[in-house]
Amino acid sequence: MFNTDYSQGILQYIPFFYVIWSDDLLSASEISVVMKTIEQDDSLDTNEKEQLLLWLNTENPPSDTEIKNWKHTIATSEVKLIESETYPLASFSQRLTQQQNGIGFNDHLKHIEINLGIQPNHYNHLFDVEVVHEKTSDQYDATILDKILKGPHAETVDGFREFLDQPIFRWEILRNKADFRARILEQVQTLAKKGYGAMAYPAEYGGTGNMPAYAAIFEHLMFVDGSLAVKFGVQFGLFGGSIQKLGSKRHHDQYLTNAGTTQLLGCFAMTETGHGSNVRGIRTTATYEPTSDSIVIHTPGKNDNKEYIGNALHSKMATVFAQLIVDGKNEGVHAILVPLRNEKHEELEGITVEDNGYKLGLNGVDNGKIWFNNVRVPRENLLNKYGEIRDDGTYFSSIKNPNKRFFTMLGTLVGGRICVARGALGGAKMALSIAVKYALNRRQFNDSVKIQEDLIMDYPTHQIRLTPSIASAYVYHVTLEEMMKRYSDDSQPDKRKIETQVAGLKSIITWFANDTIQECREACGGKGYLLENRIADLKGDVDIFTTFEGDNTVLLQLAAKGVLSDFQAEFNSAGFTSVLKLLQSQLSDTLTAINPLYSNKVDAEHLYNPKFHKHAFSYRTRRLTYTLAMRIRNYIKKGVPSYQAFLKVQTHLLALGKAYSVELAYGVFHDFCETVTDAEHKDLLEKLGTLYALNEIHADARWFLEQGYIGGTKSKAIRQRVERLSTELRPHIEVLVDGFGIPEHCLTAPIAQ
Amino acid sequence: MFNTDYSQGILQYIPFFYVIWSDDLLSASEISVVMKTIEQDDSLDTNEKEQLLLWLNTENPPSDTEIKNWKHTIATSEVKLIESETYPLASFSQRLTQQQNGIGFNDHLKHIEINLGIQPNHYNHLFDVEVVHEKTSDQYDATILDKILKGPHAETVDGFREFLDQPIFRWEILRNKADFRARILEQVQTLAKKGYGAMAYPAEYGGTGNMPAYAAIFEHLMFVDGSLAVKFGVQFGLFGGSIQKLGSKRHHDQYLTNAGTTQLLGCFAMTETGHGSNVRGIRTTATYEPTSDSIVIHTPGKNDNKEYIGNALHSKMATVFAQLIVDGKNEGVHAILVPLRNEKHEELEGITVEDNGYKLGLNGVDNGKIWFNNVRVPRENLLNKYGEIRDDGTYFSSIKNPNKRFFTMLGTLVGGRICVARGALGGAKMALSIAVKYALNRRQFNDSVKIQEDLIMDYPTHQIRLTPSIASAYVYHVTLEEMMKRYSDDSQPDKRKIETQVAGLKSIITWFANDTIQECREACGGKGYLLENRIADLKGDVDIFTTFEGDNTVLLQLAAKGVLSDFQAEFNSAGFTSVLKLLQSQLSDTLTAINPLYSNKVDAEHLYNPKFHKHAFSYRTRRLTYTLAMRIRNYIKKGVPSYQAFLKVQTHLLALGKAYSVELAYGVFHDFCETVTDAEHKDLLEKLGTLYALNEIHADARWFLEQGYIGGTKSKAIRQRVERLSTELRPHIEVLVDGFGIPEHCLTAPIAQ
Repeated sequence: MFNTDYSQGILQYIPFFYVIWSDDLLSASEISVVMKTIEQDDSLDTNEKEQLLLWLNTENPPSDTEIKNWKHTIATSEVKLIESETYPLASFSQRLTQQQNGIGFNDHLKHIEINLGIQPNHYNHLFDVEVVHEKTSDQYDATILDKILKGPHAETVDGFREFLDQPIFRWEILRNKADFRARILEQVQTLAKKGYGAMAYPAEYGGTGNMPAYAAIFEHLMFVDGSLAVKFGVQFGLFGGSIQKLGSKRHHDQYLTNAGTTQLLGCFAMTETGHGSNVRGIRTTATYEPTSDSIVIHTPGKNDNKEYIGNALHSKMATVFAQLIVDGKNEGVHAILVPLRNEKHEELEGITVEDNGYKLGLNGVDNGKIWFNNVRVPRENLLNKYGEIRDDGTYFSSIKNPNKRFFTMLGTLVGGRICVARGALGGAKMALSIAVKYALNRRQFNDSVKIQEDLIMDYPTHQIRLTPSIASAYVYHVTLEEMMKRYSDDSQPDKRKIETQVAGLKSIITWFANDTIQECREACGGKGYLLENRIADLKGDVDIFTTFEGDNTVLLQLAAKGVLSDFQAEFNSAGFTSVLKLLQSQLSDTLTAINPLYSNKVDAEHLYNPKFHKHAFSYRTRRLTYTLAMRIRNYIKKGVPSYQAFLKVQTHLLALGKAYSVELAYGVFHDFCETVTDAEHKDLLEKLGTLYALNEIHADARWFLEQGYIGGTKSKAIRQRVERLSTELRPHIEVLVDGFGIPEHCLTAPIAQ
Repeated sequence: MFNTDYSQGILQYIPFFYVIWSDDLLSASEISVVMKTIEQDDSLDTNEKEQLLLWLNTENPPSDTEIKNWKHTIATSEVKLIESETYPLASFSQRLTQQQNGIGFNDHLKHIEINLGIQPNHYNHLFDVEVVHEKTSDQYDATILDKILKGPHAETVDGFREFLDQPIFRWEILRNKADFRARILEQVQTLAKKGYGAMAYPAEYGGTGNMPAYAAIFEHLMFVDGSLAVKFGVQFGLFGGSIQKLGSKRHHDQYLTNAGTTQLLGCFAMTETGHGSNVRGIRTTATYEPTSDSIVIHTPGKNDNKEYIGNALHSKMATVFAQLIVDGKNEGVHAILVPLRNEKHEELEGITVEDNGYKLGLNGVDNGKIWFNNVRVPRENLLNKYGEIRDDGTYFSSIKNPNKRFFTMLGTLVGGRICVARGALGGAKMALSIAVKYALNRRQFNDSVKIQEDLIMDYPTHQIRLTPSIASAYVYHVTLEEMMKRYSDDSQPDKRKIETQVAGLKSIITWFANDTIQECREACGGKGYLLENRIADLKGDVDIFTTFEGDNTVLLQLAAKGVLSDFQAEFNSAGFTSVLKLLQSQLSDTLTAINPLYSNKVDAEHLYNPKFHKHAFSYRTRRLTYTLAMRIRNYIKKGVPSYQAFLKVQTHLLALGKAYSVELAYGVFHDFCETVTDAEHKDLLEKLGTLYALNEIHADARWFLEQGYIGGTKSKAIRQRVERLSTELRPHIEVLVDGFGIPEHCLTAPIAQ
């Protein structure tokens, strides 16, 4: 029946050949790896080598009869596959031959297994499996990953995690907004008492001046409750931050310490019902009245009230953004400190506050509307770092250009945007941790043979659903850390570039977070829908992160315009046409380099090479910049006003904003990996980077295909690699989410136990 | 009475003064702007200037008599305000003076208007407004669209809409689940009293036997509250429906009328904690006990309780799905009626019900867990249409194959799946209506020339965000109507094909609905986040539609397997290889037809031609079927068990399931358009079909490019056409959402007013 009379040399290779040919798993380049190993294996004689190499001929693959012979050999051997071994397949081979022939172990087999990089879950259906089943391999260590991610903040973060292990931070369901808000307020006060609120302030006001560490603990608040993170951010980041960044020493001395301790609760009143995205168009006025040496704050029309103002119901004071009018002249938007309530918490004269009511999420945050009816405050209440009213009643600013002044003031909010992205990321990490832990316990369906049903984490669809998002979470964590470092670096006073970068990153990361949380909800089925399992709340809370601190659609256009300005800055010196020509020729060069051979190169070495990823991302950004500039130029040449021209290319702007942000994130992550000293975990991180890059290229494959940058074969190969990497990471998936370092006392979802 | 004898110089300023003094619109600083302009206006003589400046004195404002004189002048002038003009107020002034005096236009007025920066929506209440600017053209008629969509159910639907105009159906925020559930129960009872609950039942049990009309009114419940739709569906569709479809006459006579009137509240206990998707694996047992001639219902293990059971806390009875064991033999899953509570609403012996608690949405539905501890019910309680226990205690079924029997029973649930998709669609329509109406009022940003900011609906990004979804909503509405018609057609007893189709459609439509609602939330910015604007609730409620009545990922695989079976049925007769060869040659023919000329054909005539769309969709389905069959065949040839083979192609299955469903929906919609007699609205519907088709091809352009079915140029052209069609439909967008026919009394979101 079966011809299974193999020499021992051949026999030890049979499990590998069986795996290789039972599947469409391997590309030509990988087969060549196997070839090389066989050629170098001195334990084989010439005939054996010849036979084995014949079996690797893709032109003339082994016959079905041959494959059945292999199968029979394996099936009748009674050797079982032990998935948890370091080299399961090589070990299987060893036991197969030892049993029959008693020879020693052939190290070449191990090398094949390493080079193939395939995992038991790719091939375990081909063998009898001995269940020493572990859900997660111990090849990597979550605490090392966590340490890498914590970076310089390890001590602060560890202390903070421990601090969160108190009853006041236990998550609970509070449906009534009054109860919920009271609880969140108490949590904020508890954090303030310990000094966490003031962390980013200078030491003389109770802080440590460490904004990056502040951002790291801020993210952790999402593990407790989204409402806590937001209220904390409003009180210390927006209200306190506006005093710190827009005010001068007298404001710091008078208010900053109290803001940090929550002695003084405050809010940040910028957005109006009529003006959210268009902040420059806000209509609240702040008119200087020389007779009383005071500033009159006034809400002129029915849509000009402040809206969605967080902390509005608990606050004693507000930083109010208004058009500053001095001597009949509008000096543009400025920030003024306006007391809202007295000691008895009664609204002061002229102040009306109304509750915004229930929201999709964040119901522990007291958002409200505020109206001002000719409210007088002393001139000193103007936060005067960038513009002030002098004693003689005249206006003065060191920044003469009102446009530049406005953007300088707004630029101080960039730190808040990083924190928003960081918070969204924290929400995504939390949801991923819950979904992965559930998928490592939940079983559903099996074949008719097995006793147990299959873990849902072992389904390819489930792997592809969660794994690329985990990779993205790692990439974005590192990126946001780096952005905060650059933002906080006072030796770099010009923050415009970072503003552009953060505008784009905030958009793609908050969208990523929402998509991920939604995917996690669905991945957990009905359990994900129950409030007790936390994903529901994360979904409702993180949703608005795409809108507040800058609507994503608006921010992406801002980012794209930043890229265009850099581009324009070049042609301001060199002249528009010559720069366009230069860029065009660069792009043509690139496309010449992209000959059909390149655009259809599908071997693993190429697809996993960071050079390919970087090249693809950089090509995309530059190509989109060039075509965008060309389109706008053509419109303007035809007499279309620039405002309208920009409207016409709006979708193009969004594409550029996204492309730029992805390129940036990948670049930052790649550079970061270079600095990781632990070789094994560096490999793992690099693999995550590869998955991120390929997944992003795959997500925009339509565009790359349209440009001819990749061909159909390559596009398919990229898709397969994303699936394959997701499967390869399956044994490490729990370590990967544990690497996020979410404390157990926060991970209280029953399905994550 | 009125002194309106103004000089022409004065007269032209009167509209401005009227606006200024009729409102608290202007701050002191803005008044000073007006002053300056008047001072510089050489068309005024000194007296006029003096008079005008007097009227700007805040210390001594114009008398009420004066203001009334202004008002009279304006009111009797018959000049109307045209809001869409660049300088509406200055233009009004001009027409006011020209009419009376015939002078030329005074540019200073324009400057005042610019400097005031106020918009018509601030002051339009003061004037007669001429509606020149239409936010929406009147080329099409929403009532005609609505009539087309209502089809044969016009009378029922119109009556139902009117019926919903009662205080009990007013939407309100109820955060406490007890209150919310009580309210929803009352709503369900109100509908039942009017006969809406029993609608799909036969006339002898209080119904009309009209399932399609039932589905149409079901969708409308989403406009009232998602919880109402779901609880209504559980009571009448699942509980009542299980009695109707799985029971026999004795069950109908005893229970159906009472189920329809809510005299008997019931639930549908299928899902278990341990088994949601894998219904065949449920572990509750129903053991026939001959001695007592009863059936013993029992929950064996800790994860075998029923879970997420809607109506569990209000019900007196449950349809329980369990493994039926007769004479020691497991006959598979059957449904048994099990009383849960007595008249006093106390749980009966052996029954334990536990509240599922709060959820992401649908908190007006009482979901619970149920345990059975050896609960005895009479043998007659077995719903015995497809399998029964005879008087001699033996089991009998006319369907011998247990597999077929199981799927026949489950097949009766297909109607419910159509309703779930219909409900999700209703949610999407509601969100789209709110978002469109908001976008037709909300203004943000402008160029520096215009006074008014731009409507956000006029932004290309906003158009592309909402318009293709509106097109999809039309397509899916028509598709689901047609599916329900086919499903209810008793002349077609074999429902397997419809099952396959509905499995796929339920998935793509519920995902579509979630994506759309999310897009609408973001499109409404912060306003979309407030509960009062309804989108937040829709988001939370519709979310779970992707999971219940069949998890989308599982259903898509079911759909794909259905497509494969049809394919297999062919090769069962012709032989596998010959069918593969046939299909391959067909595909090659197609690809030959797709020469470079075809794959880069970009003229509008071609891109808008339904033949192109149908060809693309059909090519995709067939190609995916063929490659899938080939892959599975290769795995099986190599000895991979079929269960594992299907796991390996899971993502491919999902792609096929989606492709098949889109092809189906487009085909149904296209055929439907052919039957529309009103030529103009037929054109409009066809345009929506074109947008749907191009948008779907665009969404999967990567795949079409990979296959060489379209070239890069064509792909770009398709993308541009999607943008262009969205812009083309802009003038009709309000008519399109009004065509959904959501009653005004349901569209209560403040931002939709």
